Amino acid sequence: MNDDLMIKMVLDTWYAKVKDADRLFDKLTDEQLQNEVAPGRNRGIYLLGHMVAVHDRMLPLLDLEERSFTELDEAFISNPDKAFEITISATELKQNWKDVNAKLASHFNKMQSAEWFTKHKAVSEEDFVKELHRNKLNVIINRTNHLSGHLGQLIFLDNAKP
Amino acid sequence: MNDDLMIKMVLDTWYAKVKDADRLFDKLTDEQLQNEVAPGRNRGIYLLGHMVAVHDRMLPLLDLEERSFTELDEAFISNPDKAFEITISATELKQNWKDVNAKLASHFNKMQSAEWFTKHKAVSEEDFVKELHRNKLNVIINRTNHLSGHLGQLIFLDNAKP
Repeated sequence: MNDDLMIKMVLDTWYAKVKDADRLFDKLTDEQLQNEVAPGRNRGIYLLGHMVAVHDRMLPLLDLEERSFTELDEAFISNPDKAFEITISATELKQNWKDVNAKLASHFNKMQSAEWFTKHKAVSEEDFVKELHRNKLNVIINRTNHLSGHLGQLIFLDNAKP
Repeated sequence: MNDDLMIKMVLDTWYAKVKDADRLFDKLTDEQLQNEVAPGRNRGIYLLGHMVAVHDRMLPLLDLEERSFTELDEAFISNPDKAFEITISATELKQNWKDVNAKLASHFNKMQSAEWFTKHKAVSEEDFVKELHRNKLNVIINRTNHLSGHLGQLIFLDNAKP
């Protein structure tokens, strides 16, 4: 009975975190994004590319549309930072970040409530019958926390932030 | 109609992140927790105390019981790190962390589904009528993301982690 309310709660949190990231990426220069978030840790540009790729993967995972940025996987998903040369610029990745989230939002706006409780593509029909929580809305809950974790790291690139 | 499922999804994510933090705190020595998570940023012990205090505040916020650790607020909520002397040990804070989460879990286990959709204590009856999403379950969604953000920072104290 609270389905619409729950969907709103989950999506509100998603959009709030995406907005926090937007603001941070708008503020950080491409040079700042070349820095490691902490000594010996991932560079900002790696985390940015990683998040674009992870959000891009949500498009097929949620059965919305084909991916836009599969070419990012090798540098930003399959390999850790510095193991593979990053050839794309931070400016381009920032644009990709906006594009992929806009694409997701446009689909989310059109989704019916019941659809959120259907299975995502990484779970089989067989398993889903026994594990109904492995639905599309749960993907949003998990990816919001994934975003929060990396945001907590990326803010270290912002020197103005205590 | 999906209320129980939604509650499970939200609580599963909460418990998973609490467990991630438990594992990390078990692994980090008190000496490691004295280090800053990144140069010039919060020390591990500050973030640990901060999270204990924030979770402790959930007890009255969710109308469960009185707080256990109000004395932590001055050092870990009202003041930034290094502005106020931390007199409590990391060992004691680690125990508080376990205690407060066990206390929350014990209450969560007893809560009826409908109760999760009632208002938390920081919203007025008047506002809640117009903003039904400001309920107890939403507090869990928000606090899970708060925890994820700080966990993303605290793992930098674990030298074994790439």
